Amino acid sequence: MVSHTSGTYPVIIGNAIFSDPKIVRDFIHGTQVLIVTDEQIAPYYLSTLTTALSDFRCNTVILPPGEAVKTLQTFEQILSTCANNHHHRDTTLIALGGGVVCDITGFAAACYHRGVRWLCIPTTLLAQVDASIGGKTAVNHNAGKNLIGAFHPPAAVIADINTLDTLPDREYRAGFAEIIKAALIHDHLFFEWLEKNAATLLTKDKVALQYAIQKACMIKAAVVSTDEKENNVRATLNFGHTIGHAIEKALHYDTWLHGEAVAYGMRVAAALSYQHHFLSKVDCDRIDHCLNAYGLLQPLPVSLNWHDVIHHLQSDKKIKQDRLRFILLSSIGNTLISDDITHDMIFAAWQRTISLVENKKK
Amino acid sequence: MVSHTSGTYPVIIGNAIFSDPKIVRDFIHGTQVLIVTDEQIAPYYLSTLTTALSDFRCNTVILPPGEAVKTLQTFEQILSTCANNHHHRDTTLIALGGGVVCDITGFAAACYHRGVRWLCIPTTLLAQVDASIGGKTAVNHNAGKNLIGAFHPPAAVIADINTLDTLPDREYRAGFAEIIKAALIHDHLFFEWLEKNAATLLTKDKVALQYAIQKACMIKAAVVSTDEKENNVRATLNFGHTIGHAIEKALHYDTWLHGEAVAYGMRVAAALSYQHHFLSKVDCDRIDHCLNAYGLLQPLPVSLNWHDVIHHLQSDKKIKQDRLRFILLSSIGNTLISDDITHDMIFAAWQRTISLVENKKK
Repeated sequence: MVSHTSGTYPVIIGNAIFSDPKIVRDFIHGTQVLIVTDEQIAPYYLSTLTTALSDFRCNTVILPPGEAVKTLQTFEQILSTCANNHHHRDTTLIALGGGVVCDITGFAAACYHRGVRWLCIPTTLLAQVDASIGGKTAVNHNAGKNLIGAFHPPAAVIADINTLDTLPDREYRAGFAEIIKAALIHDHLFFEWLEKNAATLLTKDKVALQYAIQKACMIKAAVVSTDEKENNVRATLNFGHTIGHAIEKALHYDTWLHGEAVAYGMRVAAALSYQHHFLSKVDCDRIDHCLNAYGLLQPLPVSLNWHDVIHHLQSDKKIKQDRLRFILLSSIGNTLISDDITHDMIFAAWQRTISLVENKKK
Repeated sequence: MVSHTSGTYPVIIGNAIFSDPKIVRDFIHGTQVLIVTDEQIAPYYLSTLTTALSDFRCNTVILPPGEAVKTLQTFEQILSTCANNHHHRDTTLIALGGGVVCDITGFAAACYHRGVRWLCIPTTLLAQVDASIGGKTAVNHNAGKNLIGAFHPPAAVIADINTLDTLPDREYRAGFAEIIKAALIHDHLFFEWLEKNAATLLTKDKVALQYAIQKACMIKAAVVSTDEKENNVRATLNFGHTIGHAIEKALHYDTWLHGEAVAYGMRVAAALSYQHHFLSKVDCDRIDHCLNAYGLLQPLPVSLNWHDVIHHLQSDKKIKQDRLRFILLSSIGNTLISDDITHDMIFAAWQRTISLVENKKK
């Protein structure tokens, strides 16, 4: 269960959800349902879900895959499908897909009739451990990722780890960035476990996978419950994301997956923490090695340049009164927030990270 | 003060707010401000406000006047102005205008960075007594008024009754529909006062006006505080609005003002209450007379037909599981909710209202 200011919601992680549709049905209160999914997911799971919900009045929106669809235009498309099909305020929206589908469906649910129920059925590892927990919903704007959104927790998160069998390997590996992040900010024993079990997890071992997802969800849920509206504790979830978002922006949300950018951002944030003498050299190296073990080891694309990254850091929403705010580590499992990070400091950590990754690749 | 689940906010009703800019400044926390207003209001009050805020980084959006602008496109325009001018999450949006400006600015504030501060400076009587209180924000969709929105209370409501001096007479009179509604659903003594003071109020007597606005705001605030998310008590604020919204929709939000449609809707709802033997003939007649006294006496436009109205009632969001829900009166000052109103009942009340209004006009 995740607590938030309007109550709690269950997070159900299992491996047979689609064989027991009652689990989904129990969370629908009215007679109307709108399923939002994408063209990659629909062929695998949509008909199973619509069959399970055959006695509801069910509409479907199938989006093209990818981040480019996470716009106000798609938000309007979903709302218009609800409105034109006369969905009332007791309707339930269901997100069936990855983080993009979950974020945009949640935001549409937040705004339709000023807030209707929604269920989150995440089908990527990243969405299962991250996008689905915490009640954050959003779309992107040209000027920034997730710039427009709302806090609107789902009625339930229903994650079936079997859906990961159809996930491309690269996306699967990228999902571990948020799992490793959860360990880094909150639980050094879980980090040790992740160091030891990298090979097992990369084979999609179901038992290990269920443990890793549950653990990451519990950490995020604990952080979110403490501080739902992001001022202090919740900000620690942004570890690695300040640089990560700037990289994604500089790459026009292309080339790299979110998890890959976050992994790189965590390397830079760890280097910053080490250069400020908060984090030991040993711990900084362990973080690099662990990310390597999960294959999160891409060198920067040649198209990326530092000036683009620093430009986008300026417009990042984690700036307060024009000062750069960074989440750093004081040790593995413990964070601190610094509001006084300068461009020079970031550049030094950036250069260190580039040379480490390049050397490893050689 | 209005209470809501995230705290309380002050409602400041006075007649010298613009001569004391500190009142507005005190509610701005950061260094950035975006003022949203419209072409009718801007010439009167915008420069006063921007001068008062000259040491903030201030941007302005000036919208065309009227309900037609209350769309997702305008919502996007406001958000883009914030984003393109690098407004951070500690920015403050200020709505300076009528209900349309307040609703859309509040919704933009609800969604920018998942919620930033906003101040509501309502400049119409309707907005001062209605749109500004309760935290409801929204835009319209082709399929329904206020279909897309959020609950996002302002940091403060600052109403200056001097701004009503520049309000066209017809809009001024229409504002009394919501004041009369507040009395009808909650306070029979206030209704008596409104019956007696119609002539005084229509001369814009400042003392009477301040009392009427304060009283209506207090009633709405009390109702909203009891039940912020609209299930039981808050629904009583919809008295007159089920029919009112259907009329507005059938007229394409043209021809009649919101208050005029609500006034007609209250007549029909009172007739329904009388026909169901909840409301006495005497009280039903008093409601008609009071609305007449405030000039809320328009006969239906010839372009309006019953079938359009009933069609739009079907798609009204106050339908639960396809049953028509109406707020009725058991007496002046007391409401009841009926979920079993049929089309025939509404048609009978509709016909009675037409004949009463037509007879009065003769």
